[in-house]
Amino acid sequence: MLILLGLAGYAAGAQAGDPKAGRRKAIQCQTCHGLDGLSKIPEAPNLAGQPETYLRKALADYKTGARKNEMMSVVAPSLSEADIDDLASYFGSIRIEVTPP
Amino acid sequence: MLILLGLAGYAAGAQAGDPKAGRRKAIQCQTCHGLDGLSKIPEAPNLAGQPETYLRKALADYKTGARKNEMMSVVAPSLSEADIDDLASYFGSIRIEVTPP
Repeated sequence: MLILLGLAGYAAGAQAGDPKAGRRKAIQCQTCHGLDGLSKIPEAPNLAGQPETYLRKALADYKTGARKNEMMSVVAPSLSEADIDDLASYFGSIRIEVTPP
Repeated sequence: MLILLGLAGYAAGAQAGDPKAGRRKAIQCQTCHGLDGLSKIPEAPNLAGQPETYLRKALADYKTGARKNEMMSVVAPSLSEADIDDLASYFGSIRIEVTPP
């Protein structure tokens, strides 16, 4: 029971990012990923509308070195857990619509 | 001059994926990523409208082991270069529009 409560608390905490704070912090991302989360360069993915869980793990993995990239491995280590939550919350909150080819 | 021509040829070849073939091959991706490239699970990214260059590198890195993921590290090694080009071409050809929060 304690374990279940602990996991629930972790999950809740991990989704408590502030999208408004994330938008401010996203200024450092915009040259490659766009402030609206649409990529500006072929090597960078769109971040708009990505699942928060995916974004949080991507940033955490770049921070720890589990995932490597020329640019992200330089910028991610300086991000705090709150920064990661805020950024994931902001980019994840951008709504996207698709038009299949 | 030969080097420049060689690079141009490589770049052209790397973008020669067939989006229709990619759509057929994407059936193996749809449980997690959606056939329209919109993620079905929190751990999987949207692939719709991602830059082809990014998608091709992601699949190639999963294939070689440079990037690791519980699911992708299992499925990517069996993909041929043509499969990777076709999948990147298909998901990259899906148009997306964003609505900022």
